[in-house]
Parts: sequence; structure tokens; C-alpha cells
Amino acid sequence: MPKIKFETDYQEGCHPRILERLVSTNMEQTSGYGYDPHTEHARELIRATIGRPNAGVYFMAGGTQTNATVIKHFLKPYEGVISVSSGHINVHESGAIESTGHKVIALPGINGLLDAGELRQYLAAFYDDPTYEHMAIPGMVYVSYSSELGTLYTKQGLSDIKSVCSEYGLKLFIDGARLGAGLTSETSDMTIKDIAGLCDAFYIGGTKTGALLGEAVVFPEPERQDLRHFTTLIKQQGGLLAKGRLLGIQFEALFEDGLYFENARHANSQAMKIRQAFIEAGVEFLIDSPTNQQFPILTREQNEALSEKFSYETWQPMDDGRTAVRFCTSWATSDENISALIEAIHQL
Amino acid sequence: MPKIKFETDYQEGCHPRILERLVSTNMEQTSGYGYDPHTEHARELIRATIGRPNAGVYFMAGGTQTNATVIKHFLKPYEGVISVSSGHINVHESGAIESTGHKVIALPGINGLLDAGELRQYLAAFYDDPTYEHMAIPGMVYVSYSSELGTLYTKQGLSDIKSVCSEYGLKLFIDGARLGAGLTSETSDMTIKDIAGLCDAFYIGGTKTGALLGEAVVFPEPERQDLRHFTTLIKQQGGLLAKGRLLGIQFEALFEDGLYFENARHANSQAMKIRQAFIEAGVEFLIDSPTNQQFPILTREQNEALSEKFSYETWQPMDDGRTAVRFCTSWATSDENISALIEAIHQL
Amino acid sequence: MPKIKFETDYQEGCHPRILERLVSTNMEQTSGYGYDPHTEHARELIRATIGRPNAGVYFMAGGTQTNATVIKHFLKPYEGVISVSSGHINVHESGAIESTGHKVIALPGINGLLDAGELRQYLAAFYDDPTYEHMAIPGMVYVSYSSELGTLYTKQGLSDIKSVCSEYGLKLFIDGARLGAGLTSETSDMTIKDIAGLCDAFYIGGTKTGALLGEAVVFPEPERQDLRHFTTLIKQQGGLLAKGRLLGIQFEALFEDGLYFENARHANSQAMKIRQAFIEAGVEFLIDSPTNQQFPILTREQNEALSEKFSYETWQPMDDGRTAVRFCTSWATSDENISALIEAIHQL
Amino acid sequence: MPKIKFETDYQEGCHPRILERLVSTNMEQTSGYGYDPHTEHARELIRATIGRPNAGVYFMAGGTQTNATVIKHFLKPYEGVISVSSGHINVHESGAIESTGHKVIALPGINGLLDAGELRQYLAAFYDDPTYEHMAIPGMVYVSYSSELGTLYTKQGLSDIKSVCSEYGLKLFIDGARLGAGLTSETSDMTIKDIAGLCDAFYIGGTKTGALLGEAVVFPEPERQDLRHFTTLIKQQGGLLAKGRLLGIQFEALFEDGLYFENARHANSQAMKIRQAFIEAGVEFLIDSPTNQQFPILTREQNEALSEKFSYETWQPMDDGRTAVRFCTSWATSDENISALIEAIHQL
Repeated sequence: MPKIKFETDYQEGCHPRILERLVSTNMEQTSGYGYDPHTEHARELIRATIGRPNAGVYFMAGGTQTNATVIKHFLKPYEGVISVSSGHINVHESGAIESTGHKVIALPGINGLLDAGELRQYLAAFYDDPTYEHMAIPGMVYVSYSSELGTLYTKQGLSDIKSVCSEYGLKLFIDGARLGAGLTSETSDMTIKDIAGLCDAFYIGGTKTGALLGEAVVFPEPERQDLRHFTTLIKQQGGLLAKGRLLGIQFEALFEDGLYFENARHANSQAMKIRQAFIEAGVEFLIDSPTNQQFPILTREQNEALSEKFSYETWQPMDDGRTAVRFCTSWATSDENISALIEAIHQL
Repeated sequence: MPKIKFETDYQEGCHPRILERLVSTNMEQTSGYGYDPHTEHARELIRATIGRPNAGVYFMAGGTQTNATVIKHFLKPYEGVISVSSGHINVHESGAIESTGHKVIALPGINGLLDAGELRQYLAAFYDDPTYEHMAIPGMVYVSYSSELGTLYTKQGLSDIKSVCSEYGLKLFIDGARLGAGLTSETSDMTIKDIAGLCDAFYIGGTKTGALLGEAVVFPEPERQDLRHFTTLIKQQGGLLAKGRLLGIQFEALFEDGLYFENARHANSQAMKIRQAFIEAGVEFLIDSPTNQQFPILTREQNEALSEKFSYETWQPMDDGRTAVRFCTSWATSDENISALIEAIHQL
Repeated sequence: MPKIKFETDYQEGCHPRILERLVSTNMEQTSGYGYDPHTEHARELIRATIGRPNAGVYFMAGGTQTNATVIKHFLKPYEGVISVSSGHINVHESGAIESTGHKVIALPGINGLLDAGELRQYLAAFYDDPTYEHMAIPGMVYVSYSSELGTLYTKQGLSDIKSVCSEYGLKLFIDGARLGAGLTSETSDMTIKDIAGLCDAFYIGGTKTGALLGEAVVFPEPERQDLRHFTTLIKQQGGLLAKGRLLGIQFEALFEDGLYFENARHANSQAMKIRQAFIEAGVEFLIDSPTNQQFPILTREQNEALSEKFSYETWQPMDDGRTAVRFCTSWATSDENISALIEAIHQL
Repeated sequence: MPKIKFETDYQEGCHPRILERLVSTNMEQTSGYGYDPHTEHARELIRATIGRPNAGVYFMAGGTQTNATVIKHFLKPYEGVISVSSGHINVHESGAIESTGHKVIALPGINGLLDAGELRQYLAAFYDDPTYEHMAIPGMVYVSYSSELGTLYTKQGLSDIKSVCSEYGLKLFIDGARLGAGLTSETSDMTIKDIAGLCDAFYIGGTKTGALLGEAVVFPEPERQDLRHFTTLIKQQGGLLAKGRLLGIQFEALFEDGLYFENARHANSQAMKIRQAFIEAGVEFLIDSPTNQQFPILTREQNEALSEKFSYETWQPMDDGRTAVRFCTSWATSDENISALIEAIHQL
């Protein structure tokens, strides 16, 4: 019998309402490359959702591609991008940012989050250094909401980072691969409009919130960007789908009646049940995550017991022999599977 | 009333049998990034189809991405890739190849096809030039089957190119965005096994042959390549889909029972009807294409007449005031639409 | 007995007055990376020479490095640089421009010179093409003065190119590897102030006009550029010499009392003697060059006769069996060697 | 009165014996790009010095250029280079390595030195990580001898690193910008032959050891490398000087009769006098350097006192209000200046 998977938030296909939309539109004839009515409609829906009727909205096929393209757009050749050490671009993109010619400048951060104070200190020291002309110039800041460790910036924390960016002339880009999980977390004090107001660009992750694939890049203030040739840049980076509507149709479905947030809320809600079960079982966590990724620390026995029926990611070995693991939920996580897992946790 | 579109071979969604497969597998739980049973099955089907049980098979999301990744894989930093001037990588990829650091060395070619004699002449002159150390070194050859102009290499023509490549130590890569249309053309004297035997890598284009998206890169002789980290390279180029099975499932459907070739054959067959109608109407062609792209040269009056009910691509203005246009067919081109077009052509 | 070399304009060391300056300053202690009084003085001399007291002036070590750095500075990632096909960046820089991620868009040109009409036609067609979003966007124009074939733009010709650039928002960059030879040619109708007034950047080639090495990049209107981090870009491209004064001292010597133009004038003058001798001998030329590179077309017998005592570059084989060769003169070409060559030419 | 400079080891011109050689050869006619007898002779002298008659030897103009070119040569597109955090490529090359597309993978190290144990631990953990396919693959190791902090690997330490490299298939490259200072340090237990035997490539820094500019890249075992087109790569990186002999002549002078080591020994010897004076004055050091860079930690009063007559680099502020500074010596550091400095130190 196959194990029940809690490995990732992309282990099923797409939400049935998205699939239905793909089926019902399948034989329509449309122009390629995103010049179709569905994609245009999806753009309008996103603009309305964030309250920015002029926002630049572009669809791409995956997170790494999106990060590399947006960062390449913002940076001059001699500039680097600041990220917390655990940031996706610094660890898990196979050097994609460097392959576009730019250094990722890694700062330690706290619990996967960049700290405004640390950022300011770094920048002050940078420009105080008489040799700074010989270093990659910091040109932008990259943060993730929610972070790679499931944690969240407070509105104040992100505003502080934005202030430092403004002070030093840096662009701020928010990786929203798990934006839904972040915004619908009970602990979040931000809305998607807040996100739009606090950055130069962000993306709305579709892949991990119910789409087959697709990320929507948003430039809230396009008049401050030179976006005339952004589609050409997407093309150059290999991110322009011939059947661009595949992305448009999915985002149409996600933003027409709130499915995006519904999916994310479901994922969080299921994750909180897992969290509660581990707490009740006296299991500690690597990090206190209020979103759809949970990082309990298991003893060898616990790990063996759970892994009999469930699969999940090994995150990192702890010094005391225990292992931090990751349980991930999504729009597709069923109550049935959650119940089975909780039961198993209670038997640990 | 909307016009009937003959603009591209990617103006509909995907073949219904592919869509059904996506629907039926939607809630399966699988690992990401192509490590799922469907993708593995698709690999096996392709290996069997080309008669190479050990072939390296990788799935990517689009043609430009695929070309850039394969070319980056093959070339050393100081090397360039030879292409006919009209080659997709030289014209319509927004400088994607150059963005990976490599020069596209364009040779004129004939009717969109590279000529082995011209290639040899170029290479001989290159190494005769005492200053060649100061030039980008030719490292590989890129050809398309079918070509950007719908034309086809003969087996002899491609073998001759392969011979020159072997002589000069160049890799040979075949862009198969329209491989299906090429192989199922009545004038083709090659099979997919021939293709596999004549190159170091090729790709099987899914997007233009009935898939929502997806191209399958094939390395027929993986033991001659260092492919250990090719997945990392795909990831770096932004081409690794989290829900990799989206590609695997589609290629499973395409190669399980010949749907790939069936789709292509249908496209060609519909194109031949269009071709015949234009011939009967006394219309000349820019090029004699035996595949799913047809390039009639229309007078202003003819163009205006046809564009009332049909949309198609303007290809290039001719010196005499006429315009070469492109009619494109696909797996989705209906008999009904073909009849309507033929009727209109006959009334020119 | 060694042959007398007319191969290049960089076959000797440096002009004695430069060498003396290097000797006399050798034990001075200065700061590195161009922050020394000599380099600053050289900047001032160049600014005075071109009549632009605010010009940005930077020193680099070689032409390819300079071209790649300036082009990287001007272009956005999706942009390419337009050059005549025979342009140095398109042929003899080993793909250096492409290695920074940018396409060289080659136009045929005439006698090594870009034609304003052809340029406008290319740009008009480019933006008329409905698929231009899928192409490398033209971002700047590169020309050489004098050209790789020794030819010269007229002031009108260059002004016309500048006008087209302005119309289409392109930067204009002049490669001045042989700027001296160009400006001191008897046929030139331009001054260095004209050059400065007709472009966004140009460089003054030192290597081929009497320096050991060194090129001075000039941005006549720095306020229109973002040059704050140009030194960092030079450093990134490997062009920032620790002992930057090595360049500053040489340009000090070259621009203090007109040595730069004196050297160039000498080279041209010696070249004209060679030219005259070939004309008198009834030898044809590949191209009519008014500068220090001369391209006579020799029969096999003539080539064999001359190559007994002289060495020069083989340029290209002609269809009729003759060979175009290049004789190159410089600041160092002695009257004695010229007399020997002329005598030999007269004996052909 | 100008201050006496101890800022860098590149604040004067070149050693007089080098300058004499440049003067005496100035009017010789030679071929360009390093194809001259002096450069060939310099190659032979270096091969003899390291006892490797077949070694590949190439001359370049500066350290950053050299590092970027060699690293670009060794790495595949998806690979990164491991360096200690304080390594020159990670800090002071303006992102030059990243601009060639490669990640610098920084490990903490100890006193500017990479630790073999830490390296092995990193690599073991890397390949244990189930997500390693999504990371930049470690392809080579970069170390400096002497390091950026003046420290030295022991022969055992470097051999251990080499062993780890062999185990994991990594190339090992030694940055020898200050190779001379390293090898002639009294604490060094290595010869240049040892260096050649422990790496895949290293470079002999000329700029900081008495040359005007110039670094000699050495591949001790060229048969294990594909160096056929290394000159083309140098050209592409903008590192190929037209008057390549400028480098050859200098290295001829440096390696003909041991001037290279003589220069380095002098620098170290003068540094040891400074070191001794600071010890006698009870001043602590940031790091215990046995080479030509000394890093005393000065109180504000000491700093003010010394900076009246001497200039030197501010290195880093200490937590207790003191400042670590750098005094640097070279082949050109006179006994007179050393005496003046020692006297001042004794008066602190």
C-alpha cells in the first residue's frame, strides 16, 4: 500500500475547478504568448484584487524562472541581490541567479527572515568600507512570504525592510511561491494589498496553491519601472509559453471567486491540525511555523513509526540524534489523510 | 463573428486524450520534479520508440528553454553554435543563446536548411584563418526538423552535415519543435530512429503537436555525454517544473499508442489541402513546404479577401507589393474550417 | 636576417617619450587603481582636448575589454548591439560581447562602415515585425573610427547614424582603437571634439598609437549616464589595474603636448608612401584606405617576392587566385624600413 | 610633506631590472598576443623553475581577470567554486566570478585558510542532501597562497585539501597573487615545485612582486586539461594584450636569475621588522601573519600618531574601539622608510 504523502505542496495535479476550466476552454482558438482573453482577464482580476488598476502583471511557469527573470530585470550588471542565507535563491535554485551574472549576497537572518536592523548594518558597513568599489554593489533585496521555513514577516518588519531599501536605493522583491499560505495564516497581519504596497515587485505562486503550474509576477507601480520589454526578457529566459493561456486560464479560476485564498486557507488549516497533534504528543519543532509547512523534530523511533505509513521530507539532522522533518499540506490534503496522520502521531 | 484562426499550431489547448489523462490522474500523489511513475513511463515509451533503451530523456516546458539548456550543456565558454540565419535560435529567441554567453554563428543556408557544403567551407576557412584564436570557436551545429520554413532535410543531407560535424569535432543538435510534422510529411525519408542516429541530441516538440506544453529532450547515446548533472542545469535554467508529471503524463499519452504521429499527420494532411487549393487558385508560394506551415504569396486583394474571415500570419512583404503569409495547421484543425478556407481560396 | 615587419601597429614597445616618463616616475609612491595624480592629470588633459571639462574618463587595458565593458554598461539584458558585419566585436573578440549576454546584430555595411540608411531600414523593419518581442531588442550602435578596414565615416555619415540612434533611442559608441589614425588622416573631416559630440561614449586607443597598452574610455556627457559604479564594472570585467598609474602616466605623455596625434600622423604618413608605391606599381587595393592600414591585392609572384624580406598579414584570398594582404604602419615605422619596402615594391 | 606609504604592495612602478629590460627591448619588432621570443622564453623559465617541461603557461594582466578566466575554464555551467569566505573571489572582485555565471560557495575557514576537514564535511553533507540536484554543484576549490590575511597553508594542510578534491572530483586552483611572499616566508614549508604538484592550476603573481602588471597562469599537467582554446578564452575575457611581450619581458626578468623570489624575500624581511617593532611596542595583531601584510590592532591614539607620517589601510573596526590596520611591504620598501616607521612605533 502506498504511503500517504505529506512531502510537498505540489504532489497532486490542480484544483478540480481549475481543471474544469481547462476542459471547458480547451478547443477555443486564441492567440499565443499570453495575448488571449483569459490571460487578459486574469490580469484584470489580479489588478482588482490588489487594488492597482495599472499594475504590470506577467505570468511565468515556475518559481526559479520567475526569480531569475525579475532579478535580472532589476539589477545592473555589477549589482547583487541581498537574501537571507536560507533564501530559495541562495540555496535551491542551482545557481540560477549567478547564471544571470549576479551575486547573491547572503545575510544570516533569523528563522528564515531577513532582519531590517541587520540589513541596515550591512549596508552601512558596506558603504563605509573604503574598498567597496571592488565588491558587488547591493542592488535589491529578496524576501519570501511565507519564508522557506514557513515563517512570516510582520507588517512592521517588512515596512522596516522597505524603509532601509528606500534609504539605500534598493529594490524590494517578494517571492510569493507560498504567498497564499502566508496571507491566510491566522498570524498574518497583512493583506495582498499590503504586500503590493510594500515592494517593487512580488509574485503570486500558483503551483503551490492549486495550479498545475504558473506564477503571476506583479509590478504594483509599473510607471516606476521600464517594463516595455519585460515580455522579451521572459522570452529570453525561456519563460514565455506558446500556449500562454494555460497560465491565464488557471489564474482566472484562482482569482475569480477567491479560490486562491480558499486553497491556501485549507492548507494552513490542515497544517494546524498536524501541529496541534505534535504539540499534544510532546514533540518539539525546529521552528514555530504558522503556515502549511511544519517542522517537528522526531526521535529515531518516532521517525520510524511515522514513516511506515506516511512520507515526508527529511529536513536536517539535529546534534542530539533526532531529525527535523517537514510535513507539508496543500489545497489537496484530505481530512481523511489528516485523521490518519493525527492518529499515528497520537500513538507515538 | 470571430475569424477562423490559422495563425499557429498552438492556438488550441491539448488533444482530448491528453486532457482525459490529466483529469484521470489529477488526484494521484506523486513526487515532484519528474520523479513520478508517469514521467518514468513516458521516458520508457520514448526510448522504445527510438529503439534506444539507454537514451537520456528529459522533459522541459518550452522550445527556447530547451534550446538554451541543451546548447549551454554542449558548449564550452568560448564556443559558438552554428545555425542557418533563419534558425529559431538566431531570430526568435530574444537572444536567449547569447544570454547564456554563446555566439550564434549564422550561415545563409538554403530555404531554411543548412547546407553541408557550405558548412564544410565555413569550417575550412575558419581554421585556415590565422586569426581564428580571436574568434568564437564553432562547437556545435543546430538544425531544425522541420525547419522554421516548413522544409525538410533529406536523410542524405543530414548525414552529410553529421559527417562534417564528426570531422570537425562538432556536436549536432536537432530542434524538433515540429519534429512530428517533419517525420510524418509524405516527402520525409526519415524515421525518428534515423533522427536519433544522426545527432547528439534532439527534442520532440510536444507543444505544437497536441500537448499543453512540453518538449522531450533526447540524448540517444548518453554514455558519450556527461549527463550526471543535466537536471541541475535544467533547474538552473528555470525549466524544472515542480509538478513535473504534467509533462510526463502528456508524453505518456502522446507515445503510448502513436498519438504523437497521428496528431502530426493530421496537421500535415490539412495543410496539404490548403496547399492544393492555393495551387489551384494560381497562387505562388514563398517556399515549397511539405509540412504544416504553408507560405502562399498573396496580392493585396487576395489578402484582404481572405482576412475577412480568416486570421493567419503576415510573414514578409515581397518586392512587388505582394505579401507572403503563413497558414498553419495542427492536430486541432477541423475539416469544417479547412472546407471554409478552401472555399474562400477558390473564390479569390 | 629577420624580416622587416609591417604586420601590425603593435609590434614594437612604446614611444620613447612614454618610456622615459615611466622611468622617471617609477619609484613614486601612489595609490592604486587609478587614484593617483598622473591618472587624474591624464583625465584632465583628455577633458581639455575634447573640450568637455566634466567628461567621464576611465582607463582600461585593451580594446576587447573596453568594448565588452562599455557595451555591458549600456545594454539591458534583453538588448543587442548593432555592428557592421566586419566590426571588431562581431569577428575578432572571441565572442566577448556574447559572453556578457548580448547579441551582436550584424548589418552588412559598406567598406567596413555602417550606413545610416541601412540602419534606419533595419530598425523600421524590426519594429514593423509583429514578432519583434521575440527578438533581441536593438539597444545601441557600435562603429569604429577608423574602421577595421582602415576606412572613415564622414562627419555627415556619422551624424546621420547619430540621428537614427536618437530617433530609435539607441546609444552610439565609437571604438577608437585607431582613433588617432582616423582623425589625422588627410581625408578626415572630423576633430576629436566632433567625435565627442556625436556619441554617447568613445575610446581613445593607446595600444596602437604608441602606448605599451591602454585605452581611454570617454563619456562626453556623464550627467546623462549612471556612471557611479562604472569603476566597479571595470573591476568585474577584470580591467582595473592595481598599478593603474601605468595607464595614467602613458596617457599623460600622449596628451600633454600632442604626442598622440603626432604618432598617428606619422603612421598615416608612412602608410601613404606605401600606398603610393603600390599604385605606381599598378597594384590594386581591396579597399581604398586613407589610414595606416593598406590592403593591396598581390599576385602569387608579388606576394612571394615581397615576403622574402617583409612580413605582413594575409587578409583574404581573392577569387582570381590573388591575395589581399595588409601592410600596417605605426608611430614606430622608420623611414629606413619604408624605403626598403618601396624599393621592393618598385621591383615587382 | 607626503606621507610614507605602506598601503599596498603595488604603490610603486616596477623593479629597476624589469624596467631596464623594457627599455632595452623597446624597439624590437615582434608578433603580438604573446607569440614573441621573450614570452616564449619566460614560459620556458617558468617551466624550468617548477620542473615541469610541458606545463601550460599563459600570461594575463591582473588577478581578477586571471581568477575569472581560470575558473570559467574549469567549471561547467551548473558548477560553483568553493572558497573561504574571506577569499578574494568572494569579496573583492566585484562579482566577477558570478558575472561568468558561477556561484562562489563560501565556507568560513580559519584565519583566511580553508580547512580540509570543513571542506570534507561540507561535501559529504552536500551529497547527503536529497535536494542537492537543486543546488550549485561544487566543481572546484579556490585557495590563496599566501592568503588575503597573509597566512599560509602548511604542505600537509594543502595536501589534505587536495585529497578531498580528488575524492570528490574537484579541481584545485591556487591564487598566487602573493605567491612569492608565501614561498619565501620563513615559516613556509613549500617550494614552487610543491605548489605545482598540489593543484590543477595556479598563478604566479607579478603585479605584487615587482612587475608593472602581469600574472602567469600555470597548468602543471596540461595533458589533463583541454587547453587547446585557452588563448581564445583569455581573449574573450579581455585578457589578451596586443603587446603581449610586455608581460613576457617582465617575467623573463623575474625568472631569469631569481629576481621574483628576491623581491618577495625583501618584502617579507621588511614586514618582519615592522612586526617585531609592534610586538616590542606591546601592540596586538588581528592575525599572526608570516608574510608581507601585517595587521596590528591600534588604539585611537596609536592610529592618530602613526597616521601623521604614514599611510596604511584601515582593515576593520574592533568591538573595543580599537582598529585593525594593514601595513604592507614590497620589493620597493626601503630601509629608510622602515627605519622611520620603526622609530615611530617605538614612540607609541
